[in-house]
Amino acid sequence: MGNIEKSLGELAEYLDAELVGDANHRINGIADLQTASASELSFINQESYAQYLAECESGAVILSDDFADKYNGNKLIVSNTYLAYAKVSALFESLSALPAGAHPSAVIATSAEVHPSAAIGANCVIGENARIGAGVKLYSGVSIGDRATIGDNTLLHPNVVVYHSVCIGSNCIIHSGTVLGSDGFGFAPVRGGWEKIHQLGAVIIGDNVEIGSNTSIDRGALGNTVIGDNVIIDNLVHIAHNVKIGKGSAIAGCVGIAGSATLGEGCTVAGAVAINGHITIANNSHFHGGTIVTKGNTEPGVFASAPPQQDVKKWRRNSVRYTQLDDMSSRIRQLEKQLQALLAQNSADKS
Amino acid sequence: MGNIEKSLGELAEYLDAELVGDANHRINGIADLQTASASELSFINQESYAQYLAECESGAVILSDDFADKYNGNKLIVSNTYLAYAKVSALFESLSALPAGAHPSAVIATSAEVHPSAAIGANCVIGENARIGAGVKLYSGVSIGDRATIGDNTLLHPNVVVYHSVCIGSNCIIHSGTVLGSDGFGFAPVRGGWEKIHQLGAVIIGDNVEIGSNTSIDRGALGNTVIGDNVIIDNLVHIAHNVKIGKGSAIAGCVGIAGSATLGEGCTVAGAVAINGHITIANNSHFHGGTIVTKGNTEPGVFASAPPQQDVKKWRRNSVRYTQLDDMSSRIRQLEKQLQALLAQNSADKS
Amino acid sequence: MGNIEKSLGELAEYLDAELVGDANHRINGIADLQTASASELSFINQESYAQYLAECESGAVILSDDFADKYNGNKLIVSNTYLAYAKVSALFESLSALPAGAHPSAVIATSAEVHPSAAIGANCVIGENARIGAGVKLYSGVSIGDRATIGDNTLLHPNVVVYHSVCIGSNCIIHSGTVLGSDGFGFAPVRGGWEKIHQLGAVIIGDNVEIGSNTSIDRGALGNTVIGDNVIIDNLVHIAHNVKIGKGSAIAGCVGIAGSATLGEGCTVAGAVAINGHITIANNSHFHGGTIVTKGNTEPGVFASAPPQQDVKKWRRNSVRYTQLDDMSSRIRQLEKQLQALLAQNSADKS
Repeated sequence: MGNIEKSLGELAEYLDAELVGDANHRINGIADLQTASASELSFINQESYAQYLAECESGAVILSDDFADKYNGNKLIVSNTYLAYAKVSALFESLSALPAGAHPSAVIATSAEVHPSAAIGANCVIGENARIGAGVKLYSGVSIGDRATIGDNTLLHPNVVVYHSVCIGSNCIIHSGTVLGSDGFGFAPVRGGWEKIHQLGAVIIGDNVEIGSNTSIDRGALGNTVIGDNVIIDNLVHIAHNVKIGKGSAIAGCVGIAGSATLGEGCTVAGAVAINGHITIANNSHFHGGTIVTKGNTEPGVFASAPPQQDVKKWRRNSVRYTQLDDMSSRIRQLEKQLQALLAQNSADKS
Repeated sequence: MGNIEKSLGELAEYLDAELVGDANHRINGIADLQTASASELSFINQESYAQYLAECESGAVILSDDFADKYNGNKLIVSNTYLAYAKVSALFESLSALPAGAHPSAVIATSAEVHPSAAIGANCVIGENARIGAGVKLYSGVSIGDRATIGDNTLLHPNVVVYHSVCIGSNCIIHSGTVLGSDGFGFAPVRGGWEKIHQLGAVIIGDNVEIGSNTSIDRGALGNTVIGDNVIIDNLVHIAHNVKIGKGSAIAGCVGIAGSATLGEGCTVAGAVAINGHITIANNSHFHGGTIVTKGNTEPGVFASAPPQQDVKKWRRNSVRYTQLDDMSSRIRQLEKQLQALLAQNSADKS
Repeated sequence: MGNIEKSLGELAEYLDAELVGDANHRINGIADLQTASASELSFINQESYAQYLAECESGAVILSDDFADKYNGNKLIVSNTYLAYAKVSALFESLSALPAGAHPSAVIATSAEVHPSAAIGANCVIGENARIGAGVKLYSGVSIGDRATIGDNTLLHPNVVVYHSVCIGSNCIIHSGTVLGSDGFGFAPVRGGWEKIHQLGAVIIGDNVEIGSNTSIDRGALGNTVIGDNVIIDNLVHIAHNVKIGKGSAIAGCVGIAGSATLGEGCTVAGAVAINGHITIANNSHFHGGTIVTKGNTEPGVFASAPPQQDVKKWRRNSVRYTQLDDMSSRIRQLEKQLQALLAQNSADKS
């Protein structure tokens, strides 16, 4: 930050916001309400932060009508504050753009088609018959397998690996260390070991998909693993062969999705969730962090399974009881029967 | 697919199958029963798919005697359908073979021994005294540390890292982003921090081992981390220092195995399992997805710990009760005592 | 091992230990009590290993006064055995040092400042205005983004990726495949998808930090993700944007920490723990393996949540009961009421 500067007038126009204040005031970054300086922009979208408005030294605050009266400084009034913050964040992105063309150290197969506007970083390797679209940016050390396709304006950070025949759409961002198209975990059991099932499908990734770092998406066994348009996937996520993820779904960090699971559109999967294979999850399903998803569902819903956090001493005692739950249930049943018999007897005795 | 073509006669011979149908019919790929075209091969090994046989347009179906009467098209009759599918999948593998020899951009220490039949891809780096066996394939960006050994016909996908002194057997496949031989997590506590315990052992990997992408296997502290022959390991698996995994075991995605744990032979560990350190697990033990394995076992068995998936409202209520389990158990005990006393009293009153 | 040799006299001086035995005896490695040969050093710090002392063939044993009388061979008597083992392990480290200077295949921006004593391995890529301190070692294939800073004597193993503006302190070790500074998982929801919130902060890592392989640490959205001095982090750990980790804390493998969580100083987080976002955890908190941490705490404590490992048949029955816990609790409450009423009635009948 620091190199990019915009006037509040420019920002108001960019955001289609109502500006109250000095249109010539210049902004060179974004910060939160408590720490923003006069050259930085802030935003507020929760009542709990309203306490900071009085002392706020920000150059301007993005806010909705609800908060407009509570702030006296420069303000940009919008209908969707969080979306406005997202949009303005793009202006202050500090990742340097790669220049178009291929770095001399890149190794590009002669049969590969690389659009002249694409940027190919140092030590990238591009395989036979691969196609690299317009405006693509491959940062250093990216490996693109034979016959893989990278759609227009997609950006791959250093050391991403794309296996052969994988197809990535347009306007995607893939972070470092992520591997797309490794073999699915498919083996036929044989005496003492396993016979590999060669994974003949590919991975098909839609448009506007972002994938975090060190995530793995396996190619299909037969047919493809498919990630829909507008899906967002975080770091260290494992997506097994032939998984399908519907449009617009969000998968947080450390999630694992087993083979041939189908996740609908508009789902959110919180961190550290594990989803079983060969199940189908309905559109607009939501899973809390740490859920072990063992079965599919057909209606939208919110699901969880994580046991509660406890002090370790309490946890030890309750854990023992957990292993006795079925017995506890039988004892309750037995008590109910005995008590009912006793009450019936008492009633009979009295009549 | 599409470049490789086999006649059904050739496939029958390769699979040692009984062919019923046209030996000259040509096949160029594999697909499932529902989508296979006349140039593709299918297979059926579950009754639930028998419904698709009638409309199947596949060029031929691999099946066992049980299904032979239910299909009228070309068929390859075998005793183990899934194994036959595995074997035939190898014929249609679409990963391009690397040519023998080293790419000019590879950096190979003069003291390294590289077999002339080995293929060393672009930007690979091979350290001092490393040994690369016959038919080895290192795809681009692979790093091989000093004194590491790669056995014959082993294949490392792009950007695999093998640290110094790690030894990999023959006929292994290691997928991209996987790291073999990083330091184990060993530290002695000191005031305010930690004194590193240098990890002086290595990683020893047997023959016919496949390891997925972005998996980490740490070197031993003293002595080695050991992965037996015919072990298969999926993506994003963490194997800590001095772990031993017995022959033929299978470890699914997102599993973590803590230091000095010993897993027997023929075990299967489903996804997202976490195994405690310093425990010993018997041969032929099996763990369901998401199990937290806190203790070892001495006999084969099947183990689980994941709590059930619930609607979030039900989950919230039951979670509160979970933290009261020990209290609930005491209350049941108290009820039993009171009821017993009451029944004894009633009995005494009547006598 | 094998190339480095020290006399027991030298080792005693290095460890500030009392040597009982032959000061000229030479040692070239470390092994455990059961397997150590006459040229290797061992240590004992647990009573359970005392049984091995009688048959031990080690060249010398590091031990405390407690064990000194139980062993007749050469011994190095120290006050903290485990710390002494850690210190001596450094002497036998077998990772080859990289020579100072840049490998000819490295691609270094002209505006980058690289200290002449730094070692830059093959195929490293260093961005504009990056600063690489004295004695830094970058092994092969490391990518350093624009304006990133690597402190003195820090070591990055092959294929580590450091994004732009990330700042790493001195004397750190970062293992292969680890990614520092990828974008945090921040998006504003829009109809059918997500608007990216550009991540404008960085990652700041203190001194003496060690990070394992294939770990991901995201850059801050606004402000930084901060890892304190003397923190140790294992493999396959996910640390989201704006997380703060206090000095001296230890994070084991497969842990995930969600956005804006703050972990205090001196905490230990065992394997496969998942920590919720936007919570604050007190100094000296400790979490057992597999805990799902949903809420913060203000006092030191030990916490757990993992359900107990069970035989699968027992687990199935108890899992059903888990989903009935709230109902079971109500039934106990009902039984208590009924029994109390009955007892009161009996008492009234008798009076």
